Amino acid sequence: MIKDEFVTMSFGNGGKKTSAFIDNVILPSFNNKELNSLGDGAVLDVSGSIAFSTDSFVIDPYIFPGGDIGKLSVCGTVNDLLMCGSIPKYLSLSLIIEEGFSLKELEHIITSLSKTAEKAGVKVVTGDTKVVDKGHGHGIYINTAGIGQRVEGIDLGKSRIKSGDKVIVSGSVGNHGLAILCAREKLLEGSLYSDCTPLNEVVSTILKYGDKVKILRDPTRGGVATTLNEFTEGMDFSIELLEESIPVDPSVRTAADLLGVDPLYSANEGKVLVVVDSECADDLVEDLRKHEASFNAAVIGQVVDYLQSKVVIKNQLGIRKVLDKLSNDLLPRIC
Amino acid sequence: MIKDEFVTMSFGNGGKKTSAFIDNVILPSFNNKELNSLGDGAVLDVSGSIAFSTDSFVIDPYIFPGGDIGKLSVCGTVNDLLMCGSIPKYLSLSLIIEEGFSLKELEHIITSLSKTAEKAGVKVVTGDTKVVDKGHGHGIYINTAGIGQRVEGIDLGKSRIKSGDKVIVSGSVGNHGLAILCAREKLLEGSLYSDCTPLNEVVSTILKYGDKVKILRDPTRGGVATTLNEFTEGMDFSIELLEESIPVDPSVRTAADLLGVDPLYSANEGKVLVVVDSECADDLVEDLRKHEASFNAAVIGQVVDYLQSKVVIKNQLGIRKVLDKLSNDLLPRIC
Repeated sequence: MIKDEFVTMSFGNGGKKTSAFIDNVILPSFNNKELNSLGDGAVLDVSGSIAFSTDSFVIDPYIFPGGDIGKLSVCGTVNDLLMCGSIPKYLSLSLIIEEGFSLKELEHIITSLSKTAEKAGVKVVTGDTKVVDKGHGHGIYINTAGIGQRVEGIDLGKSRIKSGDKVIVSGSVGNHGLAILCAREKLLEGSLYSDCTPLNEVVSTILKYGDKVKILRDPTRGGVATTLNEFTEGMDFSIELLEESIPVDPSVRTAADLLGVDPLYSANEGKVLVVVDSECADDLVEDLRKHEASFNAAVIGQVVDYLQSKVVIKNQLGIRKVLDKLSNDLLPRIC
Repeated sequence: MIKDEFVTMSFGNGGKKTSAFIDNVILPSFNNKELNSLGDGAVLDVSGSIAFSTDSFVIDPYIFPGGDIGKLSVCGTVNDLLMCGSIPKYLSLSLIIEEGFSLKELEHIITSLSKTAEKAGVKVVTGDTKVVDKGHGHGIYINTAGIGQRVEGIDLGKSRIKSGDKVIVSGSVGNHGLAILCAREKLLEGSLYSDCTPLNEVVSTILKYGDKVKILRDPTRGGVATTLNEFTEGMDFSIELLEESIPVDPSVRTAADLLGVDPLYSANEGKVLVVVDSECADDLVEDLRKHEASFNAAVIGQVVDYLQSKVVIKNQLGIRKVLDKLSNDLLPRIC
């Protein structure tokens, strides 16, 4: 048992205190045979094609409305693996803790991480703990890397997108980024929540459409506008969005207006953008709406060829404007 | 091309500057098709049993005699994969950069990382970049996670260790930790260097001995003493070291005496401890000595059953003392 109230440098020196932390906090939270063996790494059985992804999380504040850095650290990597057309299987967990961090908060974060991993069906099988001197961190930074088993017969990539394809978003946009910004500024308390969630169900619904699905991407940092620009970059098509069809929650709209932020550039941590063959777009939206995490999925635009490599948004008056990638420092440390 | 002299928050916001950094610095350094596709993760083909490991690197100073945080970030994870009896194949790379960090130093670190990855035969296939506000980091922290392909027919684990087995170290101990400590204190300049190196050749030499090899571990944080305690923990055998047989470089000995540090608790980043069947110990040492990275490998002790779960060291007078795990804060931020 660990009696310390705060994390000290010795939690990260590889000696007795590190072992006590691993034995008393980490192992009971993620109990599985791969992790319990405590080797230099985990030994896993996989086969065929896998996806491999990583993200570091430096979010400020590390506990926010709708989640915390623990939940986010699982969702971020799990969702990236899903976007590669894979079923997330294994995670690594690496903690960079600032000296003096509260052990109670650390345990809260680890518990949240463990619950989210269970929900997302992934096992935390290997890890690392480092402690940095006070003043050289910000409470806690977390890195996760993940391995997913690729779903057979799924071929995703922007080269498969063609004119006429539809663009679907799985739900309201901008919630995560604006919730974090409001939490940081102590604005609109109690009305905005991060959408942070693992997208397993949403993506498995999408992947049932097989080769009709062209590409998936979760619009995190940079938001919907930046992600769609990544689809069109270097390609001979453009994407045209219909402004009125994009779902934006009223509280997000209010916060965005108040802060002068465009929800289309605000981060999401529980949404997916998908480009599909037009013939199945309506069916897919209908299927998605059956799930809680995508109850207001919508077709928000289409692929066009009257212009190259752009993202364009058309308002109710029919006026079009170009949406570029994010270029300013709207929201640093959003994930 | 990036004209900035220093890293700004926008390098990590997922927008235009992040893309410019990836396109101009990251992609040219690690040119490979998996990374170049810039998906949410890399798609890889593997089969059978793999090893999966991760480490975050927060070393201070981030450029040190014998290496830098870039080289270390590859060696650390590559060596952990090797210790699992696998051939390292793929790495993820996640950067947490402090706002204001010099772009020139960042490029130096990335180049060093890239060269070491090439030497170790691993491809950097996926990654992430975050920037934290000035005062919330320490120049640069790096996480790597790695995937290795397990060598068939190798079964490693402390349950296979038995009385009479020999303990071999691949070379002089304590160099990394003492080099870092001296660099930090500006002591003995020019005489101590980190042993940081990928251990591919050394481990492949060891694995040729098949099931005679019981366990491998690189004695990083906590040093040889702590790692050997991990072997004996909970087991009914002990390990007895012969003090005079343990290779320690004269400069390391001098630094250790000066600073009151025991080289057996000082970190190594290019050494391996291996327990083998006694019948092949001398042959293995002879084979290891043919390689530059293990030219002074030595049998340093044996597994005994007169005592349980301990590590004991015997000096020239035959006096034995128990070596416990590291318990104090000898060297925080050593890797």
